[in-house]
Amino acid sequence: MTNFEIKSSDNNARVAILNTSHGSIETPVFMPVATQASVKSLSSEDLHNIGAQIILGNSYHLYLRPGMEVFGVFGGLHEFMNWDLPILTDSGGFQGFSLEHLRKINEDGIIFKSHIDGSVHELTPESVIEIQSKLNSDIAMPLDVCLPSDSNEQDVEQAMDRTFRWLNRSLDAKKTTHQLLFGIVQGGLFKDLRAKSADLLTSLDMPGYSIGGLSVGESKKEMYDMVEATTSFLPVNKPRYLMGVGSPEDLVECVYRGVDMFDCVLPTRVARNGALFSYYGRVNVTSLKYKFIDDPFDKDCNCYSCNNFSAAYIHHLFKAKEYLAYRLASIHNLYFLTNLMDRIKKSIVNNEFDDFRDDFLKNYKPANENVRLTQAKARSKK
Amino acid sequence: MTNFEIKSSDNNARVAILNTSHGSIETPVFMPVATQASVKSLSSEDLHNIGAQIILGNSYHLYLRPGMEVFGVFGGLHEFMNWDLPILTDSGGFQGFSLEHLRKINEDGIIFKSHIDGSVHELTPESVIEIQSKLNSDIAMPLDVCLPSDSNEQDVEQAMDRTFRWLNRSLDAKKTTHQLLFGIVQGGLFKDLRAKSADLLTSLDMPGYSIGGLSVGESKKEMYDMVEATTSFLPVNKPRYLMGVGSPEDLVECVYRGVDMFDCVLPTRVARNGALFSYYGRVNVTSLKYKFIDDPFDKDCNCYSCNNFSAAYIHHLFKAKEYLAYRLASIHNLYFLTNLMDRIKKSIVNNEFDDFRDDFLKNYKPANENVRLTQAKARSKK
Repeated sequence: MTNFEIKSSDNNARVAILNTSHGSIETPVFMPVATQASVKSLSSEDLHNIGAQIILGNSYHLYLRPGMEVFGVFGGLHEFMNWDLPILTDSGGFQGFSLEHLRKINEDGIIFKSHIDGSVHELTPESVIEIQSKLNSDIAMPLDVCLPSDSNEQDVEQAMDRTFRWLNRSLDAKKTTHQLLFGIVQGGLFKDLRAKSADLLTSLDMPGYSIGGLSVGESKKEMYDMVEATTSFLPVNKPRYLMGVGSPEDLVECVYRGVDMFDCVLPTRVARNGALFSYYGRVNVTSLKYKFIDDPFDKDCNCYSCNNFSAAYIHHLFKAKEYLAYRLASIHNLYFLTNLMDRIKKSIVNNEFDDFRDDFLKNYKPANENVRLTQAKARSKK
Repeated sequence: MTNFEIKSSDNNARVAILNTSHGSIETPVFMPVATQASVKSLSSEDLHNIGAQIILGNSYHLYLRPGMEVFGVFGGLHEFMNWDLPILTDSGGFQGFSLEHLRKINEDGIIFKSHIDGSVHELTPESVIEIQSKLNSDIAMPLDVCLPSDSNEQDVEQAMDRTFRWLNRSLDAKKTTHQLLFGIVQGGLFKDLRAKSADLLTSLDMPGYSIGGLSVGESKKEMYDMVEATTSFLPVNKPRYLMGVGSPEDLVECVYRGVDMFDCVLPTRVARNGALFSYYGRVNVTSLKYKFIDDPFDKDCNCYSCNNFSAAYIHHLFKAKEYLAYRLASIHNLYFLTNLMDRIKKSIVNNEFDDFRDDFLKNYKPANENVRLTQAKARSKK
């Protein structure tokens, strides 16, 4: 039996079904991030209406608040936030990178000072499995060591080896069977290390493979090259999840290179700053030119916000700092990604993905390197 | 022809239909406040689902931002915020009280320094009629002079006389016929002045009467006494609107004294601080005792928030400072008032309002005087 059925492919890109204990997901898929059991400013009903198939929760944050006792009462994160579709949880490994000033890493695990109250906590491969078991997520991640993009090869190799030792400890600790535990490919920007990491993981025949340690300061070209290399080292018949990547152009470029799953806080974070996605690029709705526009922000968009409100109203809500602005903009950006993925899937099924990608990249003005750095910084706050 | 049809009464309390250009309202009614074209954290769809029949917009705020040119493009506030039921707009008179440090009042009108950018603007009885005509609200207020509760009788009488002169100027300036212009009874805490003000207004046979200058620092007893006196001076067959009052106990006590319409920012403001209404009083959902409660905050409540989420989840959202907390709490508090008004109306129709009031007041622990002052302060920020 397999959890992953490929329905269609077009070169390295593919459309597939990933089966989980809370139902099936059609990939490629973007997963909105509910860091603290809420995708910021949205309810679970909003996520349903956007067409989200699966969301992501952060173990580190949920472990600290509300804390595992609460999830004991509820039986998991699904019931707590009233979301009945699949959930993927991360392991806290990324926070070992992003909250650098708050942690120490040793062979046993990662010792954190809580960003909330300064209390000290240790996340180990075993405790992280236990936490995710209590969150009862459908897909879990093992604790990993994530380094900045400018790390040297020796450091990256040591981190990768430790990540693999931690995966073995995770597998020993794992008791649930319905939860899919992915392996995380590390190796920084070194192709030979990526190959070694992928080989080690593949030897364990994991139900899915995450690509970690990217979108941590490197250039877009470096990231795309590394994604392309890494997917080539992974088995075709298993899902690949690129962690922490989610701008529209990155989705197109990385689906092209064989990625199936994505998550990122960027779409909702930039939304809260008034930056809305369009097929021409990221557009700032707080710009004066929207003040009098009584049409929707995007007439062709079928999201709740564009269906019900004008660009001028959303512009005004941002200017007046009304909370509704953040909700409407977040809905638009997540819906945009759902729609983009639908178009990508359709073009793969029709063997027209190359044309779609060319068209998309011709029209879409990508975020520049400055914005890229903002994205890395945004992630590091997660 | 009359815009106001009384369907039932029980002593001074009554159930009636108020007809406006955007449909009929069943009174008594609480009107949520959309200061800046949004009831804070809620969409117009949320307001529909809560059962809001009419909302309030603030002329002063909307005049400054987005500004009247924008409403020219949209044809009014309804289209701008996508709300198709009635809207009442205030005149800016209250901001002449609450933004004291930013204004000067003379016979011509009120000169404001904008709270946004310090620019200087004059609101006159005529300009306020013009602004509300452009907002195209269903019910409009004339510019009035509102004083603090500790003002002396001479000042209050002068303010009242000026308010009446301004009303006459407002009537001269008014061109639209579909908009109902209410008269505002002033007179502070002086019954004879309230009587004089009511007499003057009644002589003009206004389509409705507002009771102004209350909830500005006086005690609850003083307010209830003044409401009781004022309604006794007003014609029975016209709607009475008590401006800026909206705690649950105030609604019960003032419907009892013959009031038909209410507005207040308090229900949504306290919601954003985690204070939820219940039939036992105002309850703080941020209290530790809600941390593990997997039942709704109020099992008998049929609001969206209680129907979909546990008290523990809402507790967590507040602790984690998630925007969704403010939306869910605001929905609950406004729905509570809708439900309270429905129960009040039913008891009036059944001639059981006295019993309902006794029961309500026996169970409901009212906010204390400290909270009362907070309410006045909250209003003064509007």
